[in-house]
Amino acid sequence: MLAKTVFPRGLLVLRSFSSVASKTLLKMGDVLRETRVFSSEDIKAYAEVSHDWNPLHFDPESARKAGFENRLVHGMLVSSMFPRIISAHFPGAVYVSQSLHFRSPVYIGDEILGLVQATALRETKNKYIVKFSTKCFKNHNELVVIDGEATAILPNLDMLQKSPSE
Amino acid sequence: MLAKTVFPRGLLVLRSFSSVASKTLLKMGDVLRETRVFSSEDIKAYAEVSHDWNPLHFDPESARKAGFENRLVHGMLVSSMFPRIISAHFPGAVYVSQSLHFRSPVYIGDEILGLVQATALRETKNKYIVKFSTKCFKNHNELVVIDGEATAILPNLDMLQKSPSE
Repeated sequence: MLAKTVFPRGLLVLRSFSSVASKTLLKMGDVLRETRVFSSEDIKAYAEVSHDWNPLHFDPESARKAGFENRLVHGMLVSSMFPRIISAHFPGAVYVSQSLHFRSPVYIGDEILGLVQATALRETKNKYIVKFSTKCFKNHNELVVIDGEATAILPNLDMLQKSPSE
Repeated sequence: MLAKTVFPRGLLVLRSFSSVASKTLLKMGDVLRETRVFSSEDIKAYAEVSHDWNPLHFDPESARKAGFENRLVHGMLVSSMFPRIISAHFPGAVYVSQSLHFRSPVYIGDEILGLVQATALRETKNKYIVKFSTKCFKNHNELVVIDGEATAILPNLDMLQKSPSE
């Protein structure tokens, strides 16, 4: 199914693959997307595995002292949406690089839209080196919370449909 | 305690703060460090919270097909050492940006050394904007697995000693 949607910053996106029913080959400009809402349990689980117990993520008073409305979701947890989105569509994708600019805070309960757009694509030795623009938005997709770029090596350009559980 | 150590790439590091017994003010060139070994359970816990189930992290055969020796620790999980190291020494630190280049694979059981070095420091409105060089090494600290840079806003320059449990 093709969806025509105008995104923030005037980016015209002609096709979205969250609802593609079968395999499609990735092309320049294609956009992959997913939404997620982070919970208090997610913050705790991420702190347990990353050992990042920064009080900004647990103590609302510390977060307010730092100028935020409430305790924050770890930026690196929100950023994990990018390799998640890429590998969900391209199992076996190898991450080469990622840049991240944390523009706005993410709070528990915020609906976060993650967008990954192919901006460059090069074939080499039967694999594909693809550069992606990577952005997360909130507030009905009007506020950028993270932006950056990722480069990944894809085993092929066949995009898998996401599983029904996602 | 001052430690004089020669690091890879000829970087001469005069002071290491893993063993500093009391509060010390961060200065340009100071290095914070931590080591960690990632387990199979860490990979599973990270996949559960990030939803990143890339087969490279679970299926040795998929990993070998992609040119690796065995299944990989998620690069973004290894990268979580950087904000962890910074916030362990500066609780309340706010992450502004992070760049990551994944240079070498990390396998279960590899001893990873994370190094974070202050490379620029600016005071503004009673806070401190600090740029850090961020690197992870393995193989007795000879092989770079991740390098990049981070910028964080620190509430002050007092470096906390890490807790005994770390």
